[in-house]
Amino acid sequence: MLSDRIRRLLGFPDNMISKMDQNEAPYPPPHYIFSSLQDALESINYYQTDKLYDEVCSLYAEYAGCSADRVFLAPGADNFYDEFFYHYRKSGIVVAPRPTYFLFEEQATHLNYKVIGPKLRPDEFKLDTDTVIEAAREADFIYIDNPNNPTGALISEVDDLRAVAEETDKALLVDEAYYEFMEGDSIINLVEDYSNLAVLRTMSKAFCLAGLRITILIAGDDIKRQIYKKILKFRVPTPSLVVARDALLNRDYVEKIVEEIRRERRRLIRELNRLGLKAYNSHTNFILVKTNGEKLVSLLRNRGIYVKDVSNQLNDYYMRITVGDKESNDLLIRTLEELLDA
Amino acid sequence: MLSDRIRRLLGFPDNMISKMDQNEAPYPPPHYIFSSLQDALESINYYQTDKLYDEVCSLYAEYAGCSADRVFLAPGADNFYDEFFYHYRKSGIVVAPRPTYFLFEEQATHLNYKVIGPKLRPDEFKLDTDTVIEAAREADFIYIDNPNNPTGALISEVDDLRAVAEETDKALLVDEAYYEFMEGDSIINLVEDYSNLAVLRTMSKAFCLAGLRITILIAGDDIKRQIYKKILKFRVPTPSLVVARDALLNRDYVEKIVEEIRRERRRLIRELNRLGLKAYNSHTNFILVKTNGEKLVSLLRNRGIYVKDVSNQLNDYYMRITVGDKESNDLLIRTLEELLDA
Repeated sequence: MLSDRIRRLLGFPDNMISKMDQNEAPYPPPHYIFSSLQDALESINYYQTDKLYDEVCSLYAEYAGCSADRVFLAPGADNFYDEFFYHYRKSGIVVAPRPTYFLFEEQATHLNYKVIGPKLRPDEFKLDTDTVIEAAREADFIYIDNPNNPTGALISEVDDLRAVAEETDKALLVDEAYYEFMEGDSIINLVEDYSNLAVLRTMSKAFCLAGLRITILIAGDDIKRQIYKKILKFRVPTPSLVVARDALLNRDYVEKIVEEIRRERRRLIRELNRLGLKAYNSHTNFILVKTNGEKLVSLLRNRGIYVKDVSNQLNDYYMRITVGDKESNDLLIRTLEELLDA
Repeated sequence: MLSDRIRRLLGFPDNMISKMDQNEAPYPPPHYIFSSLQDALESINYYQTDKLYDEVCSLYAEYAGCSADRVFLAPGADNFYDEFFYHYRKSGIVVAPRPTYFLFEEQATHLNYKVIGPKLRPDEFKLDTDTVIEAAREADFIYIDNPNNPTGALISEVDDLRAVAEETDKALLVDEAYYEFMEGDSIINLVEDYSNLAVLRTMSKAFCLAGLRITILIAGDDIKRQIYKKILKFRVPTPSLVVARDALLNRDYVEKIVEEIRRERRRLIRELNRLGLKAYNSHTNFILVKTNGEKLVSLLRNRGIYVKDVSNQLNDYYMRITVGDKESNDLLIRTLEELLDA
């Protein structure tokens, strides 16, 4: 639940009680991960350093189980999308599942890329890898967010993605932003063997640090050589690096958050279905809900609960609800109960 | 002078006493500009917001004397260079004074741009605008850092730059990173009238906030339309936005810093010349010094004083010294005295 100070600082709407529209963690990380920040402020007149950047890369490598020289940090996935869009540009075509992460599509469109690729269809939302491989022939690279946003589904298993990496020579970028919440295997172990594979991760979700803008790329050999590390190193501010470092050094809290979100996710899905809505299985910290045309998103908004309308991405009435803390989830269910009864 | 804690946090060399190699302010800003940071940390699980970004843009507009819709923020000048390099690409040629800011040249080279343009020659270091206009015919855009890095010189007056903006239809990017330290007029008032003009500023120098990565672009109408604001908004973390806002709201300290740096700059130039070195006039917070071949840079480094060797940029022996606090400057002069005597 939002405090007045935070609402004011970030400029959230006055009536906002629960922010369930951007898949953020429902609360900040424990205070002890901010303990080096004071020193960071006392040296804020100096530029961030390579040493600090490399330290965070090493710690993330240890967390992810890969070698540190494959790890890059940037203030947001869009930085890495840019690297792919600009470096691999030939035909101006990119393969991605549809629907996919809105920012990727938006950036592709801005740069005059055409996004092609298989549709994910309810109720399964599974990626057809043969279609991906076929479409990749004429494309510059492949982007797959797995688990997928906005469906929340694990759209592909590791072996299917391995087949894609193997049967095409195009670069394959797999976005695992929701990795911590998924039930299934990460593709990260394949990065060592497939030079055309790269994996995106973030500290915005399970690490509860969205406001710091820490996105991580783990790159196979070919892709690694393309990434302009020197420039990326300039983009991540000292406070973000220092807190990211201390979060990785003290990451027990992440497990606790993930456990709680998963538990609340199960409960929410059950309750939403009980209310007669169709809530899909989720491998993320959000839930896709079919709403049968009711204007639930705006009705919820009027009651201070902000969820995301994703109907335009799925050609039918759907909303995406971020799993909140217990209090917010209770309020959501109570409010939906009232709205659906009325 | 550096404390052990800061040296350790940022990974500076053990023997480093004075950091005079990256044109940073010699001390952090006053503590009161960090007063909203606690709220920012308590909401760090949420993404930074458009509202906060726009608030900083408005405050910077007020400071710079331009309209807020012309202002963009990004975590480093390289973000804006990218926008120019990618958007205006045709011939792959860019006009810039030589020498110029190393990062601009480095990024140009990485993206296979050819940098052409007039050489700045000692002792005047003045930009020949006719050569710029002529060279611009075959180029994609023009980049001029004024005051110039590494010479410290004001290489062009406003009227000369106006002539460039007027006599070419190419985009003209003027980098005023050192604006606060210069003695002369900013070109910012021309942005309203010249749609092909944009001005770069930073909070890394006079605002003492290098570690936050806050760079500002103020863009004329044509350039404004090209900038991909939506993506840039994603790149600046909440702590950077919050502190930048409070720095702009409490900017009296900037004047004091600038006054002190200018006073120390005059003193340093006088002392360096007294020691028989050639120290050039400066409109920045650093001083270019001709060293007549002596290996002063490494001798100073052995004594814990880090300055930058810029000989490769000027085809002769030169070093660039950031103006430090009084203590560091005294130490520099004392040490040089000993080294030159020996």
